[in-house]
Parts: sequence; structure tokens; C-alpha cells
Amino acid sequence: MGDTIFGKVIRGDIACHKVYEDDRILAFLDIGPLSRGHTLVVPKEPAETLDKLSDDAAAALGRVLPRLCRAVMQATGATAFNVLQNNGASAHQAVMHVHFHIIPRFGPGAPGGRGLEIGWTPGKLTTEDGKALAARIVAAI
Amino acid sequence: MGDTIFGKVIRGDIACHKVYEDDRILAFLDIGPLSRGHTLVVPKEPAETLDKLSDDAAAALGRVLPRLCRAVMQATGATAFNVLQNNGASAHQAVMHVHFHIIPRFGPGAPGGRGLEIGWTPGKLTTEDGKALAARIVAAI
Repeated sequence: MGDTIFGKVIRGDIACHKVYEDDRILAFLDIGPLSRGHTLVVPKEPAETLDKLSDDAAAALGRVLPRLCRAVMQATGATAFNVLQNNGASAHQAVMHVHFHIIPRFGPGAPGGRGLEIGWTPGKLTTEDGKALAARIVAAI
Repeated sequence: MGDTIFGKVIRGDIACHKVYEDDRILAFLDIGPLSRGHTLVVPKEPAETLDKLSDDAAAALGRVLPRLCRAVMQATGATAFNVLQNNGASAHQAVMHVHFHIIPRFGPGAPGGRGLEIGWTPGKLTTEDGKALAARIVAAI
């Protein structure tokens, strides 16, 4: 299960506010929520980052996301939400065991918290660079 | 396929810099990238938001994420990355067809762009609220 705090939660050595569990997945409330209902979805397979997770574990995690998102929305009355998954300390990953955040968003002024704050500074992909870069990624798959 | 710009991309009516395709999934470069290699992973099923996507489509999408993340990292030399999926205009969703962003992150000062800017203002989940809220979510699943 890995030796992180999430490994301990999965093993039951640390308590959590569990919302879902199956053979491959555990979901529980984040104790430092960005908004009310902030939920973590964790594969039991102890991969550090998503690129190292097995296809089967990633499929199992994907499969439960829609129903967990619906339940979090229904239980909190949120009107929108973000799903975020961070890989690497510089990308805001704090626990080195793959986890997806479901972060509800509420209307302005509504109780429930701010949710995820996103800064978006887009660049522009030129046709030439797009062609070259897509070819590199295709070659790497 | 839906009537959004991504529906048109899936149908081939609008060109894209494709990096991956199977029966259920299309992945291509974002033309307004937050960083070099910013990739969109889109289910062909035309759900607006993740809570409305079928379990099978969500599983198929989850299954391809690790290999796409590996390929984007390898092709760009990124050292970290975020996976983000926005639901609702207030949560930064711009195209009303489910899509996952793979957003590479590069070292400070390195070329490649800033990547996703994340603001994180956590609250605190009390034991009492955690119990009540988890029970509400469990009941909604």
C-alpha cells in the first residue's frame, strides 16, 4: 500500500471520513478542504504519480469518478466542481501517492469555501510547433 | 458527438494536432497551452460534465491517462505535471464537452511556460462535520 499517509489510511492505520471503497479504490474527505465536500479519490495501488499507475488501476479510478462527483454535488448542493490531480512537489503534490481531488465550487458569496483557485495564462500553439510536438508525443506513446 | 467545438474535432470537421485516438477517446494538443505539451484528453461520448459521463467512458479515459502522461513528459522533458478537469463555467470550463487537461510543469526559469497556476486556501474539516458530510455523500452514492 506504500508508506505515505494515504497508504496508512488505506491500511486502516489512520482513520478517515470514508465515502467510498472497492477492491481498488478508496475515497474520503480531505481534512484540509478547499471547499465543503472536497474529496480525495485514491487508488490502493501505491504509485507515486499518475504516469506510474497501472492501466487497470487508472481505469478503475476513472470508472468511479462520475458517481463520486454526482454524490458530492448532491450532498453539498455545489453548482460546479474541479477534478485535479497533481504530480510532483513543484506541481503542488503534497502526498506521494496518486490521488484525485474532487473540489466543489459554490456560487459567489455562498458558504462552502472558495474552492480551487485557478490562474490561466495561455500561450499560443503555432501550426509548425503543434505538428512537431504532436509527432514527438505520438512517437513516445 | 455533440455540437461543441470538441464534437467537431472528434468528427474531423475541425483539424487538431492529434496525439492519440481509440474507439472511445481522442487526445490532442491544446491550441492555447498553459505550457509546452498541454494536451486535452476527450471522451467521444458527448457528456457536458464528468458527473454525466458513463462509467464505461470514464473508465476508458482513466485507462489511457498514465500512458499519455508518460508520453507528454517524455516528449517535453517536463519534470512534473497537473491533470485538471473543470465542470461548469464558474469552475473554468470553457467547452461544454468533458475534457481532461494534462499540463506539464517545467523548472523555474526553464522555457515551456508557467503551467497551471494553483491557489490553495485550505479550511479545516472538523470531526463532527466530517462524519455528517461523509454520511450524506455515502447516502447519495
